[in-house]
Amino acid sequence: MATSTGAAKPSPNLVYQTLNAYQGTAALRAAIDLDVFTAIGEGVDTAATLATRCKAAERGVRILCDYLTILGFLTKQDRRYALTPDSAMFLDRRSPASMASTSGFLTLPGTVTAFMSLADAIRSGRPALGGEGSISAENPVWVEFARSMAPMTRPVAEEMAKVLDAGAGRKWKVLDIAAGHGTFGIALAKHNPNAEVFSQDWAPVLEVALENARAAGVEARIHRLPGSAFEVEFGAGYDVVLVTNFLHHFDPPAIETLLRKIRGALAPGGMVVTLDFVPNEDRVTPTRAAAFAMTMLGTTPSGDAYTAAEYLRMFQNAGFSSNDVRPVMASGHSLILSRV
Amino acid sequence: MATSTGAAKPSPNLVYQTLNAYQGTAALRAAIDLDVFTAIGEGVDTAATLATRCKAAERGVRILCDYLTILGFLTKQDRRYALTPDSAMFLDRRSPASMASTSGFLTLPGTVTAFMSLADAIRSGRPALGGEGSISAENPVWVEFARSMAPMTRPVAEEMAKVLDAGAGRKWKVLDIAAGHGTFGIALAKHNPNAEVFSQDWAPVLEVALENARAAGVEARIHRLPGSAFEVEFGAGYDVVLVTNFLHHFDPPAIETLLRKIRGALAPGGMVVTLDFVPNEDRVTPTRAAAFAMTMLGTTPSGDAYTAAEYLRMFQNAGFSSNDVRPVMASGHSLILSRV
Repeated sequence: MATSTGAAKPSPNLVYQTLNAYQGTAALRAAIDLDVFTAIGEGVDTAATLATRCKAAERGVRILCDYLTILGFLTKQDRRYALTPDSAMFLDRRSPASMASTSGFLTLPGTVTAFMSLADAIRSGRPALGGEGSISAENPVWVEFARSMAPMTRPVAEEMAKVLDAGAGRKWKVLDIAAGHGTFGIALAKHNPNAEVFSQDWAPVLEVALENARAAGVEARIHRLPGSAFEVEFGAGYDVVLVTNFLHHFDPPAIETLLRKIRGALAPGGMVVTLDFVPNEDRVTPTRAAAFAMTMLGTTPSGDAYTAAEYLRMFQNAGFSSNDVRPVMASGHSLILSRV
Repeated sequence: MATSTGAAKPSPNLVYQTLNAYQGTAALRAAIDLDVFTAIGEGVDTAATLATRCKAAERGVRILCDYLTILGFLTKQDRRYALTPDSAMFLDRRSPASMASTSGFLTLPGTVTAFMSLADAIRSGRPALGGEGSISAENPVWVEFARSMAPMTRPVAEEMAKVLDAGAGRKWKVLDIAAGHGTFGIALAKHNPNAEVFSQDWAPVLEVALENARAAGVEARIHRLPGSAFEVEFGAGYDVVLVTNFLHHFDPPAIETLLRKIRGALAPGGMVVTLDFVPNEDRVTPTRAAAFAMTMLGTTPSGDAYTAAEYLRMFQNAGFSSNDVRPVMASGHSLILSRV
């Protein structure tokens, strides 16, 4: 995210860079699709050899790799490209921390195209995506989300499991709302052999969560609750309710309705664990949490990045008395622990 | 343009920022469309009052302005927004240096959408835009170009007029190839009352150039040569031939063909003045000239940002003997002065 440098003489550079910024998105998406980073990581390091390896035209590969060098994803010396430490860790598919798959969801062509009519969306008060945006029933975008975003989420889920002391092995009945890839519920099940996890999401999304649960060896303790979080029967007696990257899609009345429903499903002493982007009161810091509101503006009718004070009010209105906000996640997320 | 910081610990931030960079393009485009910067410049400075002024929904305006603050285009204090020095000069439409109109051409939705399939384009060796891309005959994009880009070009044209010593008033017959908005030919005509300018471009584009010439009071000395630069009859006896932001669209054989045609139209002692983005031999510096190759990859079948050595070879092959490259333009352009 570019920031003002406070330079003495005005410059058009930031305007020009920002108007062209979509080319950075396009270039990184293309490089991931062509698997350029893995190839360079394996030592295929000139435009000509990369073109052969990636089954592409040399001019395109050369211009792409030069552009990635300018953006800081590659280095170039004597016409040979090399990975930066960031690219080696996060873009080479052989790396366990690879987040290459996230470009599938983060740069969905339909979403990018919709953003280009953002002014109309702001005028009309409707999402640029049209209709109900990403929160429409059974929206297939969440299958793409579940397939793409797990790698980016795993470190956050590990951090959450630690904060909740999952390793202590207490008998837990866990409700995982909008489970998506299932990563959060799976992390709790892995660290706590006495946790049973009930995962709610659209049925095709839960298929992905179950695949991931099988891969993690915990599928026997993951149970499906297919349907809308607002409509499906949760059951009762939950010790932990996970609400991860979900509340931001809705307006406060809808969120309070859901929180009341969740409260009714809690066991005595049970806890709601909300993971979300929570900006400061100024709504412009910290950068990543604050900037997330733009994604909600483009893709939802009334979603937002809510402040801690706003969440406190919503939880209180829904009958919760304690709210512990921890802005500790490496991903820029905050964790909110709430009890009745 | 983000650059690698060489930080010790790998971070996913650059990946995440770049995948989301299209939102910066979308936000700036939307803010220009809604004329938010002019409104803030006039003192309308809260989300609520801006929403009224811009006839838009308050949530959208608030999220947009917060995002623009994060990007460095606004400041925010106690819920009031203010322009940065850059925004006041380049985005407030009341400023003589406003480049607000450039977003029309630089962020054409069709171009942005096409870039999202850049990997396919690189595989196939065809422009993401499809077909011949932006260089197809009578492509209407050049009318948008001519209407949008003049403000960004005027300071460069002034600098060129100075380098060419247009003010000396020598009798000049000027050929302005791919005149577009006409800014370069108009600048020479303004500074040199003894210059007659023949402007070549698609007929509807020349309409825009003539409008601009009228506004500058030099329309009597601007003459039209409508059609393709490769096909239209230039005439002969030109003292100065301007080739501005044009050669980059083509491959070297096509460029050499055009340069030979230009050579045939020169008066004895005449000069070709090429304005273009000319990166260093490494093709990754300076940033703006080198990055321009990406625009050519997305929008043309074989365009590029050529190095000085490549231009020298093309001009030599076309029968020119001297080539004076001056990388002096504030816009990141270089000027190449060539004689037979």
